[in-house]
Amino acid sequence: MASFRPLYDRVLVKRVEAEARSAGGLFLPEAAKEKPQHATVIAVGPGRLGKKGELTPLTVKPGDVVMFGKYGGDEIKVDGEDHVILREEDILAIIEN
Amino acid sequence: MASFRPLYDRVLVKRVEAEARSAGGLFLPEAAKEKPQHATVIAVGPGRLGKKGELTPLTVKPGDVVMFGKYGGDEIKVDGEDHVILREEDILAIIEN
Amino acid sequence: MASFRPLYDRVLVKRVEAEARSAGGLFLPEAAKEKPQHATVIAVGPGRLGKKGELTPLTVKPGDVVMFGKYGGDEIKVDGEDHVILREEDILAIIEN
Amino acid sequence: MASFRPLYDRVLVKRVEAEARSAGGLFLPEAAKEKPQHATVIAVGPGRLGKKGELTPLTVKPGDVVMFGKYGGDEIKVDGEDHVILREEDILAIIEN
Amino acid sequence: MASFRPLYDRVLVKRVEAEARSAGGLFLPEAAKEKPQHATVIAVGPGRLGKKGELTPLTVKPGDVVMFGKYGGDEIKVDGEDHVILREEDILAIIEN
Amino acid sequence: MASFRPLYDRVLVKRVEAEARSAGGLFLPEAAKEKPQHATVIAVGPGRLGKKGELTPLTVKPGDVVMFGKYGGDEIKVDGEDHVILREEDILAIIEN
Amino acid sequence: MASFRPLYDRVLVKRVEAEARSAGGLFLPEAAKEKPQHATVIAVGPGRLGKKGELTPLTVKPGDVVMFGKYGGDEIKVDGEDHVILREEDILAIIEN
Repeated sequence: MASFRPLYDRVLVKRVEAEARSAGGLFLPEAAKEKPQHATVIAVGPGRLGKKGELTPLTVKPGDVVMFGKYGGDEIKVDGEDHVILREEDILAIIEN
Repeated sequence: MASFRPLYDRVLVKRVEAEARSAGGLFLPEAAKEKPQHATVIAVGPGRLGKKGELTPLTVKPGDVVMFGKYGGDEIKVDGEDHVILREEDILAIIEN
Repeated sequence: MASFRPLYDRVLVKRVEAEARSAGGLFLPEAAKEKPQHATVIAVGPGRLGKKGELTPLTVKPGDVVMFGKYGGDEIKVDGEDHVILREEDILAIIEN
Repeated sequence: MASFRPLYDRVLVKRVEAEARSAGGLFLPEAAKEKPQHATVIAVGPGRLGKKGELTPLTVKPGDVVMFGKYGGDEIKVDGEDHVILREEDILAIIEN
Repeated sequence: MASFRPLYDRVLVKRVEAEARSAGGLFLPEAAKEKPQHATVIAVGPGRLGKKGELTPLTVKPGDVVMFGKYGGDEIKVDGEDHVILREEDILAIIEN
Repeated sequence: MASFRPLYDRVLVKRVEAEARSAGGLFLPEAAKEKPQHATVIAVGPGRLGKKGELTPLTVKPGDVVMFGKYGGDEIKVDGEDHVILREEDILAIIEN
Repeated sequence: MASFRPLYDRVLVKRVEAEARSAGGLFLPEAAKEKPQHATVIAVGPGRLGKKGELTPLTVKPGDVVMFGKYGGDEIKVDGEDHVILREEDILAIIEN
């Protein structure tokens, strides 16, 4: 399988299915099309780029379950499955069980 | 129950019902759809991110009752109840009794 | 009565009635809907937030009569009366008698 | 009469009547509605606010005759007469006789 | 005649007539309404204002023939003749014979 | 063949054909017109320009396979074949096999 | 002939005719109206202006063949021929044979 290396502050995530989430019983979006979304972080960039070329590492890491807003991010397919790639600032929160 | 950790300067709030607020007798929105809104802070991020990666802690803390404007924030459901997640700069004021 | 603590550079003001102002005889808006407005400052935030987390105190203080532009600010009700909450940069001037 | 204290880099001006200006014979706007405008500075703020809270004093001072663009500025009435309050950066030039 | 002192990085220019330019034989706009324009610099401001209040002197000086873009600048009349006042950054080039 | 030297943080890329990518079996765009796109980096600029004139070298290098969003970038032909030139910040990730 | 001195980071270029470019056989725009364009640099400004008044010299120099995007730049005539004046950041790449 190919390795996917996001640049700078980009984060690759894979949506958590609504069914899977309901099973956990906790976070239910009201309407899929209009609501923030849950996802598992698959890969993260090396950090956000400062004005002098320095990198600030990201907070999220692979395996984190995150919630992101409905705007921002590009839909892509990796290994035939839907993923989203977005900037870390489009991620709203990390959800821990 | 899952733990919800907002990133950076994000804040998770839960709206205070209009009835509950009227009981307190103090702050009444004129029309729900067009007015700022009251909410209780549920969880706060670690701080707003500066240009060099430093974090400035937020002013609001869990338990605070806050008022926020009608724009900004994403509607989400946590444990089946409506919540809003927004940036601290979208919060207008803290209300203390 | 509840205490209302604006955040950062937010300012809570209460409009001065046109009649009251005419009595003072000085500043008359041409048409209420299209003109800047007079108000008394009720509460002010601790200061505008700088890039490094420092606060610069505001210039206006509770009791000041100020004029603000027609844009900016959220209409809210406090104790059943109309107020406006805005950023200090939306305030144009302080009026002293 | 009330004192009018503009905040920061705001400037209160009073338009110079076209007739008065024609008498001076020098600067004639082509069409009042679409052109920059002449005015006398009535009051100025203490200075533009820098990122660290420092104030840079304005260049214009009360009594200056200035020209400003057609955009920017709020129309207000002071003592029953039309005035304009604008930021100093909306002022194009000082006119000296 | 009145003296016209542009503020900061503002520049007062007077258009060079198309005929006069054709006589020089060099720079011909394709269509007056849609093209950059030639002008003679009449007066310049003291410099562009930096974040700490310092002024950086302008490059253009009175007497320079300059070309400016079709956007930016306010049309004004000085001594009954059309002039344009613009920021130096709206000036594209200085033309020297 | 001519040499193509992108300026600053510009990157010249050549799209990887969908067929070629399917053969690799990994990354399939859902719909060519609406999705991010894969490409091989052909040439990169010397670095992004800082405020003081310093250059921060880019992360991507010639030969990298990258994915970029659907917005940003100019379509150009080099040696009769379609290429895209974009800023490095429009590149989402590097894909390694 | 008059001398044309672009200000700051402005660059004066003259389009390379499509025929001339085809003869070179290398870079062919797909459709003139919608594509980036080739041009020869005729004159360059002294450098981009920093916040403290310092100038950072440009990368392109007279004689360079460059490609620029379809947006940005003003069409002008110099000595009766079409030219374009643009900022260096609107130039995508230098082409060397």
